[in-house]
Amino acid sequence: MNRRGDKSKKRRPVAPTVTQVPWQRLRNPYTPTAVISADQVEAIHNTSMRVLEELGIEFLSNTALERLKAAGADVDFSTSLVRFDRGLIEEQIAKAPAEFTLTPRNPDRAVTFGGNHIAFNSVGGPPNASDLDNGRRPGNFADYKNFIKLMQSLNILHLCGGVPIAPIDLDAETRHLDCMNVILNESDKVWHATGLGRERVSDAIDMLCIARGMNRDQIKDEPGIFTTINVNSPRKIDGPMLDGLMEAVENGQAVSLTPFTLSGAMSPATIPGALVQQNAEGLAGIAFAQIIQPGARVFYGGFTSNVDMKTGAPAFGTPEYTQACMAGGQMARRYGLPYRSSNTNASNAVDAQAAYESQMSIWGAIMGHANLLHHGAGWLEGGLTASFEKAVLDAEMLQMMAKFMQPMTIDDDSMAFEAIKEVEPGGHFFGAAHTLERYATAFYDPMLSDWRNFETWEEDGAKDATQRANTIWKDLLRTFEAPELNPAIAEELDAFVARRKKEEASKA
Amino acid sequence: MNRRGDKSKKRRPVAPTVTQVPWQRLRNPYTPTAVISADQVEAIHNTSMRVLEELGIEFLSNTALERLKAAGADVDFSTSLVRFDRGLIEEQIAKAPAEFTLTPRNPDRAVTFGGNHIAFNSVGGPPNASDLDNGRRPGNFADYKNFIKLMQSLNILHLCGGVPIAPIDLDAETRHLDCMNVILNESDKVWHATGLGRERVSDAIDMLCIARGMNRDQIKDEPGIFTTINVNSPRKIDGPMLDGLMEAVENGQAVSLTPFTLSGAMSPATIPGALVQQNAEGLAGIAFAQIIQPGARVFYGGFTSNVDMKTGAPAFGTPEYTQACMAGGQMARRYGLPYRSSNTNASNAVDAQAAYESQMSIWGAIMGHANLLHHGAGWLEGGLTASFEKAVLDAEMLQMMAKFMQPMTIDDDSMAFEAIKEVEPGGHFFGAAHTLERYATAFYDPMLSDWRNFETWEEDGAKDATQRANTIWKDLLRTFEAPELNPAIAEELDAFVARRKKEEASKA
Repeated sequence: MNRRGDKSKKRRPVAPTVTQVPWQRLRNPYTPTAVISADQVEAIHNTSMRVLEELGIEFLSNTALERLKAAGADVDFSTSLVRFDRGLIEEQIAKAPAEFTLTPRNPDRAVTFGGNHIAFNSVGGPPNASDLDNGRRPGNFADYKNFIKLMQSLNILHLCGGVPIAPIDLDAETRHLDCMNVILNESDKVWHATGLGRERVSDAIDMLCIARGMNRDQIKDEPGIFTTINVNSPRKIDGPMLDGLMEAVENGQAVSLTPFTLSGAMSPATIPGALVQQNAEGLAGIAFAQIIQPGARVFYGGFTSNVDMKTGAPAFGTPEYTQACMAGGQMARRYGLPYRSSNTNASNAVDAQAAYESQMSIWGAIMGHANLLHHGAGWLEGGLTASFEKAVLDAEMLQMMAKFMQPMTIDDDSMAFEAIKEVEPGGHFFGAAHTLERYATAFYDPMLSDWRNFETWEEDGAKDATQRANTIWKDLLRTFEAPELNPAIAEELDAFVARRKKEEASKA
Repeated sequence: MNRRGDKSKKRRPVAPTVTQVPWQRLRNPYTPTAVISADQVEAIHNTSMRVLEELGIEFLSNTALERLKAAGADVDFSTSLVRFDRGLIEEQIAKAPAEFTLTPRNPDRAVTFGGNHIAFNSVGGPPNASDLDNGRRPGNFADYKNFIKLMQSLNILHLCGGVPIAPIDLDAETRHLDCMNVILNESDKVWHATGLGRERVSDAIDMLCIARGMNRDQIKDEPGIFTTINVNSPRKIDGPMLDGLMEAVENGQAVSLTPFTLSGAMSPATIPGALVQQNAEGLAGIAFAQIIQPGARVFYGGFTSNVDMKTGAPAFGTPEYTQACMAGGQMARRYGLPYRSSNTNASNAVDAQAAYESQMSIWGAIMGHANLLHHGAGWLEGGLTASFEKAVLDAEMLQMMAKFMQPMTIDDDSMAFEAIKEVEPGGHFFGAAHTLERYATAFYDPMLSDWRNFETWEEDGAKDATQRANTIWKDLLRTFEAPELNPAIAEELDAFVARRKKEEASKA
């Protein structure tokens, strides 16, 4: 582990050659796009309430069932099926905050979710890694570390991981400890903790406490991590997910309730049907979170896409996906809940398809007013691969969106009547005083886009965007400098990981 | 020229293997995105009125100057500078129709512009052609013909050309005749006529009359072509453009007034400044069109992008470009004018950059409520190259947008309560009756996107989207069948072209 406190031994990184925007909080100033009417929002709401009242959701945890029964839900212990009265649902979800802040070990990188705030996270979950040099391979710890460094390097990303690549060369029961130790050493951003079971979430909270020099009571009031609670759609929430949820919200950390409603497979073959199911499943989980911990910080997670009906293959960044993103935002706002969406695509290569499907996803999130864009950078191949080049491509697209969300200042100075007066008809503005004053900062300066003329570009090797992305991530890793970390904290983290590994080993 | 009336001699085309949507008219059901407030729209309006009142626009045509003076503009014949009172501007532009229809030789392919109608045209204007097999080369007539066939083949395109590739192997003075003869033989869609000078526009009108069996009076009431009148920004409209404009509107045909306000070069280095200038220049041209022909069919054309301030290179599909597209739509709607935008990018290759810059352009047009997306398919390299692969990539992206613009039907059937009831928790919907009923048509079926799993894709050659696009355009050309054309009309068109070429030759 590279220690920040021991600078003398470090090789001096060379100056970064990559153009980037600074790390910055973002707000979305534009009116969200309504793809459905207010009446249609109510129709989806009402039908999803029927699902909860008449059909119910399976909760595969006795603790959960007991708590739900105590709160007034209709619980069948023999089938684990829970039916909710709509009054109970509305009463519980009303307790969820409309806005909350997560604070990582560097408080300057705290991020607020809700309202018109929007933040971007890396991809999470792929079993595979890929890059142009070494192709696609099963994830490993070396790739994991490099990817975390890349996520930390890309300033447009507000958050950094979780587990963008599964390091399958590490022990499955303890790899989350190694992963979090990498994040806390190499990054100072908010991260996503794996929500499978109480222990993983508990470890995340303990390590966050160490990194921030706080205890659990303090961290409960000033949370710093979030976890994703996936519904095993249709209508089933598995035990480990419920355990992870309870551990997170009991300790004040945030959870994203995210049904995986792939239309045609895990939900009906219509987007409205998938949205009904998404809404029922998500609200059931959110209500449960509020029953466990009133005021629990939750995201309304939307992850509705569709399958290719000819093959059953999942598709992402489709037109239906974009509609579902925007409609999902409408549902989340109906309940006053922060909204989580994703940057997805189904391409097997970092090519034009990866770009346009991601664009359809990103635009769905932006115009749907997502507050958290999960899987923001690196997602490829329907989420089965984390790509180093795709991460750079995504960062460029997100930087462009960040600029797009900066509203124009319209005043006498920017409307430039005097400059228009200064330049004669048919002339040019290159030398105008108004232009020269703005020379350096007038427009978005890209990281990846190449605007040189064809001849210059060709002489320089005719590299396409993916090849240039390959150069960029290597430059970023070559010049990577981890954020300062107190050596005593680093040692305490190492000791914690060692102790917990010993505990796990003794269980086996 | 391949004659439709002479089917016996034609090789039977093999069945198309390319999945496409049918040719269809489109409406945009969503509320346009306002990137500026109503007050800011007025501020841009007022400042652009100051430009027209105090600074003026050069009109490089004595006929134009005379007509403008007669209509009450303040004309300086020594400098060709025309100043407009804002009352005169508003009086004239109020005469422009909010909506109009263009009818090609096949009336079933008539297209309406204005309101929430939206239509897509091919790229126009590039001097070069490119494809993966033969790379980039100066345009030639063989490429031109193939590109027109491709534009006709792609159902998502409502319009077909103009001059997507300049055939520079043909005589510059008469190539427009050859080009239009190709369009009228190989396509039955609305097309864009070159607006440089009266003769080219007059030839277009004559050939449209022949193709439709109508005379000029009839075609004036039921127009079929449009031309682009570019402002030579800043503040200058060249003589041939004014001549082309007059010929078009005197004969009832549509014109798109399109200032080329590249921010930092031909307009101020701020988007609000560029919009002020775009608005002033565009409205001056539109007012002139109304003076020439009250009720003239016009587009408010937006083409504001920005340069790379480090090199002066034009950039397209930038965040500023997207904002300008949407703000341009707001200005056009303030005046009740149909709005024209473009699908642009600055990439030198059909790669991820080409895709994301085009997406930024297309989303700007869609959420900006453009009525005509010009350069819709094939534009590459800042408009210097028409790419066969990019045309297919664009068609896929436009098809996806067409589907996105189909509003969801939300009713009991689509919300699928019964299907959700039918499938048990943790089950799947593949076999549900609700799914089986929708098997074939549930979701968008792509032309270019590949959703197969990685292994299958890799075994099949690991082709990226650009390589697949190469296969698709060749399939479309291989199976191309031109729309029926009466042989007598085809002969009359040939005779017209021959006669006009002789006239031009005798001038030389």
